[in-house]
Amino acid sequence: MPDRHYTLGLDYGSNSVRCVVLDVATGEECGVSVWDYPSGEAGVFTDPDNPHVARQSPLDFVQALEAVVPEALRQAAGRPGFAPARVIGIGVDTTGSTPIPVTVDLTPLAALPEFAGNLNAMAWMWKDHSAMGEAERITALARTHRPQFLAKCGGAYSSEWFFSKIWHCLEVDPAVFEAAHTWLEFADFIPAVLAGIRDPEKVRRSICAAGHKAMYCDDWGGYPDAEFLARLDPRMGALRARLSHRAWPASVAAGRLCAEFADKLGLPEGIVVAVGAFDAHLGGVGAGIAEGRMVKILGTSTCDILVARDDADLPDIPGVCGIVKGSVLPGYYGIEAGQSAVGDIFNWFVTEVCEGEPNLHAELTDRAARLKPGESGLLALDWNNGNRTILVDARLSGLLVGCTLHTDRADIYRALIEATAFGARRILDRIEEYGVPVREVINCGGIAEKNPLFMQIYADVLGRRMTVSASSQTCALGAGIMAAVAAGPAAGGYATTEEAQQAICTYREEAYEPIPENRRVYDELYALYGELHDSFGVAQVCFDHYSVMKKLLDLSRRVRTRDV
Amino acid sequence: MPDRHYTLGLDYGSNSVRCVVLDVATGEECGVSVWDYPSGEAGVFTDPDNPHVARQSPLDFVQALEAVVPEALRQAAGRPGFAPARVIGIGVDTTGSTPIPVTVDLTPLAALPEFAGNLNAMAWMWKDHSAMGEAERITALARTHRPQFLAKCGGAYSSEWFFSKIWHCLEVDPAVFEAAHTWLEFADFIPAVLAGIRDPEKVRRSICAAGHKAMYCDDWGGYPDAEFLARLDPRMGALRARLSHRAWPASVAAGRLCAEFADKLGLPEGIVVAVGAFDAHLGGVGAGIAEGRMVKILGTSTCDILVARDDADLPDIPGVCGIVKGSVLPGYYGIEAGQSAVGDIFNWFVTEVCEGEPNLHAELTDRAARLKPGESGLLALDWNNGNRTILVDARLSGLLVGCTLHTDRADIYRALIEATAFGARRILDRIEEYGVPVREVINCGGIAEKNPLFMQIYADVLGRRMTVSASSQTCALGAGIMAAVAAGPAAGGYATTEEAQQAICTYREEAYEPIPENRRVYDELYALYGELHDSFGVAQVCFDHYSVMKKLLDLSRRVRTRDV
Repeated sequence: MPDRHYTLGLDYGSNSVRCVVLDVATGEECGVSVWDYPSGEAGVFTDPDNPHVARQSPLDFVQALEAVVPEALRQAAGRPGFAPARVIGIGVDTTGSTPIPVTVDLTPLAALPEFAGNLNAMAWMWKDHSAMGEAERITALARTHRPQFLAKCGGAYSSEWFFSKIWHCLEVDPAVFEAAHTWLEFADFIPAVLAGIRDPEKVRRSICAAGHKAMYCDDWGGYPDAEFLARLDPRMGALRARLSHRAWPASVAAGRLCAEFADKLGLPEGIVVAVGAFDAHLGGVGAGIAEGRMVKILGTSTCDILVARDDADLPDIPGVCGIVKGSVLPGYYGIEAGQSAVGDIFNWFVTEVCEGEPNLHAELTDRAARLKPGESGLLALDWNNGNRTILVDARLSGLLVGCTLHTDRADIYRALIEATAFGARRILDRIEEYGVPVREVINCGGIAEKNPLFMQIYADVLGRRMTVSASSQTCALGAGIMAAVAAGPAAGGYATTEEAQQAICTYREEAYEPIPENRRVYDELYALYGELHDSFGVAQVCFDHYSVMKKLLDLSRRVRTRDV
Repeated sequence: MPDRHYTLGLDYGSNSVRCVVLDVATGEECGVSVWDYPSGEAGVFTDPDNPHVARQSPLDFVQALEAVVPEALRQAAGRPGFAPARVIGIGVDTTGSTPIPVTVDLTPLAALPEFAGNLNAMAWMWKDHSAMGEAERITALARTHRPQFLAKCGGAYSSEWFFSKIWHCLEVDPAVFEAAHTWLEFADFIPAVLAGIRDPEKVRRSICAAGHKAMYCDDWGGYPDAEFLARLDPRMGALRARLSHRAWPASVAAGRLCAEFADKLGLPEGIVVAVGAFDAHLGGVGAGIAEGRMVKILGTSTCDILVARDDADLPDIPGVCGIVKGSVLPGYYGIEAGQSAVGDIFNWFVTEVCEGEPNLHAELTDRAARLKPGESGLLALDWNNGNRTILVDARLSGLLVGCTLHTDRADIYRALIEATAFGARRILDRIEEYGVPVREVINCGGIAEKNPLFMQIYADVLGRRMTVSASSQTCALGAGIMAAVAAGPAAGGYATTEEAQQAICTYREEAYEPIPENRRVYDELYALYGELHDSFGVAQVCFDHYSVMKKLLDLSRRVRTRDV
């Protein structure tokens, strides 16, 4: 038996942290531990006077390390061949954009007595929308002065992102802004802590976070220029010099594990700590993303991750919120898209409309599975939480058409699943139109693992084989993979992400292939979806919808009489 | 105490018959009896092989007389002043169009041994849709050769109507067609039975039935000409001579009560039997219809009845399914419109979507009443059962737009009520546009009596005072009123319908007045409703719906911040 080597994948989610001990030769998950953030409500601080505020304590993030790492190691300890000394690296993924204000020695302001309890000194959680006004102003300014910035992020800068939040902090709490030497993304902060880095110049910021959320791009020399930022506020312009000059992919080292944390966590000092990245992106890596293989992370919302070789220029793709070189795999553009609600729409229907318990999902799925595509005569738009890709418009809403006096809740449930599939196809079509092929979709998340009806509808609507990742921990797995690549073959890791994925990523045996007769029906429904999508979602696109209801009725009749 | 006089109102519904003994001086309902048809399922015969078939036994209709009349008289017997000898007339309303094939002596074919059990020899119930093909062919033929016929019935001849059904019978069961000397409407048949009429020439057919369902109009000499009918089939052309030359309003006598039924029912021989009419039309009369006072009969579907003076020509009103001189009140055009589902839409939502019991209506109404107009951000189209007026299109369906992840079932319930109110306003607007004023709406039916939220929403959306009839039996009341007018003042009745209504019709004290701030909100929502109505319901009307969802969100925000 050759010497085994292991990496740790640390996956920082919205409410908890997860640590996986990964056997880098086999991909086996030898230890898994989870820890819930202790502060706020499920780790989140809110403001009773402002529903848009969502903050988290960076102290929780640090405390988490000692909670999850030793426990995961303890679990792995039972495995033959495992020893903490065989751990060769640590990889980290986090939510984002979640910027954290820090001092010149990288202490989070939240740790300073003078800012104790101040929400603005904490981590500004990805779902904090308090900076809506700033986001609109950044978008407007960029439209006029730097249209290239917007082209890379789908045409609008979001209130969820780095500069919107920092600028909002400057406007509402200048004392915090002034006290911050710089701001780190959550994904940059954890590797810096592990590596004991106290000098902002030495932090290797994540290309994934910088590129997708902070308008970082090599084309214009990294982060937005000081002149542009100064147009927001001169103090924002001055901040530019305190950001980094360069950002890094997760496959390289951010540093080496410092003595303090080696001791606290029970790991060898000096092992590699990989540059951090966002959870969805490393989830893509852990799921086996490759050229032509899109990864779809299915949850309350979805994240679609794709890669395209960066040896040729990739055009900007309208409505696709991020295209960043090296943000997923080195040597590839990383492309991020997503739907703002998927599981949330089914949860909404079960909870708010049916007033049912969670087990109603299974009953409705069973009933919906007995329907043929098109049979219900229903068609929905999946915009209950707006549309992230490709319309980038939060002010859209859900629509259901085709209701008769016989329409039942299972008909509607199925129509809602189909609507999210049509939304997914719209994204996929747009991306393919711009030259990025998608041959197969690898799916992760609870829905993919538990709902074969959902998966078959997606296969039929998207016209692609739908594979399901064998791991439920693809984000942590991706972080572990990156640690193995950052450690390199000499340390027992890998030279390339492809090699590491080849060894580590596995899939469930059951996959879902498109069924030709279903595809034909869904092609017809998708044409009607497209009509509604464009007339309700795109300005100045005009339709006479007279035929919509009639076509739905006709299709339903044809499906029932097997005339499709 | 002066001598009292009474009339009987016989109201033949879809599943039961009702008889009211009416004090013609006070409008008091002195006796009420109800009897369910004994045959078929709740009185209806269906065909397992054809879901469009719905027939009824004319023998049930005759048998009903002896079931309900003596019982109503027995109840009235307790009242001071009442005696059967004081009954001066009988009025009749029925469902329709419900044609019945009869022999040359007016025996229903269903009573002949050779046709026993033959569904085609029975009464073809109003909701029988087996003649859809014939209806389309009649519409197409009239469009080419007699466009004036269609102009009076909203632009399309229905499968529910007289000639569609008779022609369909000729095509599917020529033996029945050949055996029938003629066909009587249900509303013509009952008065003929009571009056002992055995000669088809002596039957006074109802102008209400003939005008609204059989293209009868004085402008072209009554029923459609033989040449037109012969284009359908020569045998249909030949039938024309066996229809009547003239049709009559319900305020005149169809005949006098014959000895046989006087004896069977316990009534004086020779009292007047009024010409029959449809239930909704006499319901309008019983509710107090007058110029400027529309009557709305609110049930699973609705029927709107209006009158306009016939001393000036009334133009055809596109999409309004019937304009017939004298069909409601003598001296007035009777105008019929309606929505194909109202109560049915709420029942659908409670039963099929919420899977609730009937008491859920009360809970949802309570919750919906706590919402302000516009607050939910929802908008619906009330077309779950198609659109009868003004689009005359069965192939439309329901739509709901504006759903977020917070939309709950009470939001939807209210949006559905509002949608039916917008549909009602669309009808009212169309009719007013053509010169028929509506100052007030008188409402009948269970919803009007039981649901103040519904009534207030209607007052706010329609911008009219909503009154509720004090009687729950307005159809039978209208029939009793017509009997009193047909009997005339010499017999203790009235000279005019106006006088009779003045004495007899009463209203609940509580009425619903429009609330100005609600009207403002509903005017905005109605503009959006109109946009969706026209783009989904009218061919070649084109809209860019980009602003719909945004306007709904804005309105919701303004309502919540009281900025309307």
